[in-house]
Amino acid sequence: MFNFTFHNPTRIHFGKGQISAISPEIPAKAKVLLTYGGGSIRQNGVFEQALRALKGHTVLEFGGIEPNPEFETLMEAVRFARKEKVDFLLAAGGGSVLDGTKYIAAAIPFKGDPWDICRKGAQVKRAIPLGTILTLPATGSESNPFAVISRAETSEKLAFSSDHCYPKFAVLDPETTFSLPARQVANGVVDAFVHTMEQYLTYPANAPLQDRFAESILQTLIEVGPKTLAAPSDYDLRATFVWSATMALNGLIGAGVPQDWATHMIGHELTALYGIDHARTLAVVLPHLLRVRKEQKREKLLQFASRVWGVQKGEDGERIEKAIRKMEKFFESLGVPTRLSAHPGVESDTPAIVASRLKSRGFTKLGERQDVTPPVVERTLALSLAAA
Amino acid sequence: MFNFTFHNPTRIHFGKGQISAISPEIPAKAKVLLTYGGGSIRQNGVFEQALRALKGHTVLEFGGIEPNPEFETLMEAVRFARKEKVDFLLAAGGGSVLDGTKYIAAAIPFKGDPWDICRKGAQVKRAIPLGTILTLPATGSESNPFAVISRAETSEKLAFSSDHCYPKFAVLDPETTFSLPARQVANGVVDAFVHTMEQYLTYPANAPLQDRFAESILQTLIEVGPKTLAAPSDYDLRATFVWSATMALNGLIGAGVPQDWATHMIGHELTALYGIDHARTLAVVLPHLLRVRKEQKREKLLQFASRVWGVQKGEDGERIEKAIRKMEKFFESLGVPTRLSAHPGVESDTPAIVASRLKSRGFTKLGERQDVTPPVVERTLALSLAAA
Repeated sequence: MFNFTFHNPTRIHFGKGQISAISPEIPAKAKVLLTYGGGSIRQNGVFEQALRALKGHTVLEFGGIEPNPEFETLMEAVRFARKEKVDFLLAAGGGSVLDGTKYIAAAIPFKGDPWDICRKGAQVKRAIPLGTILTLPATGSESNPFAVISRAETSEKLAFSSDHCYPKFAVLDPETTFSLPARQVANGVVDAFVHTMEQYLTYPANAPLQDRFAESILQTLIEVGPKTLAAPSDYDLRATFVWSATMALNGLIGAGVPQDWATHMIGHELTALYGIDHARTLAVVLPHLLRVRKEQKREKLLQFASRVWGVQKGEDGERIEKAIRKMEKFFESLGVPTRLSAHPGVESDTPAIVASRLKSRGFTKLGERQDVTPPVVERTLALSLAAA
Repeated sequence: MFNFTFHNPTRIHFGKGQISAISPEIPAKAKVLLTYGGGSIRQNGVFEQALRALKGHTVLEFGGIEPNPEFETLMEAVRFARKEKVDFLLAAGGGSVLDGTKYIAAAIPFKGDPWDICRKGAQVKRAIPLGTILTLPATGSESNPFAVISRAETSEKLAFSSDHCYPKFAVLDPETTFSLPARQVANGVVDAFVHTMEQYLTYPANAPLQDRFAESILQTLIEVGPKTLAAPSDYDLRATFVWSATMALNGLIGAGVPQDWATHMIGHELTALYGIDHARTLAVVLPHLLRVRKEQKREKLLQFASRVWGVQKGEDGERIEKAIRKMEKFFESLGVPTRLSAHPGVESDTPAIVASRLKSRGFTKLGERQDVTPPVVERTLALSLAAA
């Protein structure tokens, strides 16, 4: 096991009606900016519940944060918040609204060009405090310090992280997610699954508890994913999915073990170039990357095959391929394609383009062994494109 | 799944040499009271490393906190800390030192009789901030708000909990535990196992992820417990045990599910009366309580049999008994007896005495269904006493 520091200070309020729990969490005199996306929170009751919980506070609003939150939009919010001297940000929405709000929180007090936070990894020395109300289980953003921001002008999609951006609290009320479109639920299941894989499917590091926790999340997503898609108003199924997605990326299962994240880095490029949903980029990359890296990941792939999919028999190579196929079938059963060719806009030179974009940004050594080089990226995407 | 709030603010520094990480955690001008037990920290290098990390601070010492930390001892520390105007407590030791230090932290600013915190559940409104350096993996005290305090004068052993008593940080360096006596390691494994069982072996609450996390901890303890006892200096084995014990009682696996804790309540009486090591009281209570409650706990016992012990065949009753026996064999393999009769001082009227003591304190409805009444306690202990 590697040395690690683990600290997740976000207070989770989980369950029915928990939006009301935020009242005491926000300083009495704080001027609050409520951020959200396309306005679904006005339909699903979240907006009303949030305003009720914020009674007594001055509340301003900033809506319209889009999927793959856009730098220009967020900078509008930053200018507005600076002008209004906002003290607290309350983000209500899915991963995009939450990520975008973390960026707003970091950019408001930032000296210099705030895009440097993403492009140059400029240090975030402080941030406006923020809280979250999650309405789309998937990214884990509600209780982690990560955010991914897009910039259309330069076709960039870049991540940043700062401990100052941990939400003070996160409300997870599964009932507020019942009205989500099926596509978003399916995407969320895949996203949480791949988050877990990025921290699990690497190489053995003598960390059997972390392994078992990761396998627990994978098994649970396999069990409840299709069911919660089919029965969106079943509280317990949805609650289990919500909690699994949070646990998949709150720092816990990644503590003390190697991490991969190559699939995410490649996927971000596919979103930036072709507008493919984030989770759908992961589903077309991961299976093929595992095939390409199967020697380097052999031991964990065999463990994955045995413990997660119950594949015990056959030669090593067969068991590994069986497990990858089962994972693909699982994604496909949710309506999420696992072949790059399924996505419009993608062409025969896409693998080379993505590899070259990563190279030009210096991302030439991805993965837990830093051996996912641009040629490996190209081979992976070519495999995905050619797959039947 | 039940509604819940989960918040664990303790920063964990895990691994070799991590004591040095505490320097920036303690306010620069704080006057620090270093608390410890019998002085083993002077032998195992912890004391030296702690002093080095505290360089620049005024450091006072309070040693001699005993196993089952004693009210009178702790009140000495309280008086000393009040007189010296201590700002920060640093506890270095096992669960007893950590629990005792939480009590000191809460008692220093407490108005009134501090024993009321335990006996009457008086509210702790504030506490002196504390940090922990764990040298005995077992109780999870390093990153939770719980403490159990004893008072010899009245043969009491009582628990309290306050969010103000969450340690600010916890250092878990597995190497500092290599020199522990085998008996303490064995006790620690059993303690962590039973902590997990108290939050798992209840009734199904549609919380499959929490179930799987709990099963992960149980399986990992079964796997590494005997090995780390046999090879105390194997870093990875010990690290896995340390992390498992922390995860067993940091609030995570108990979030959103019913909890039992009857075994602990009964065990505390056995320690208070006969001085039996805490973990050893749990080992003589739990198997027999599960037998007595097997109808009420049937579904989870069958799940435990199947998933944790691989017992799939036979009638329900047989499978349950097989699983309980496997658990007993596991405890015995660590040198920890599972029959009350193994402990000197215990007599034929012990079951009745314990039941009556619990009754006199109003603990008449224990367990997740509040159906562990004094007669059930008596029956459980009688079974343990009679067992071959």
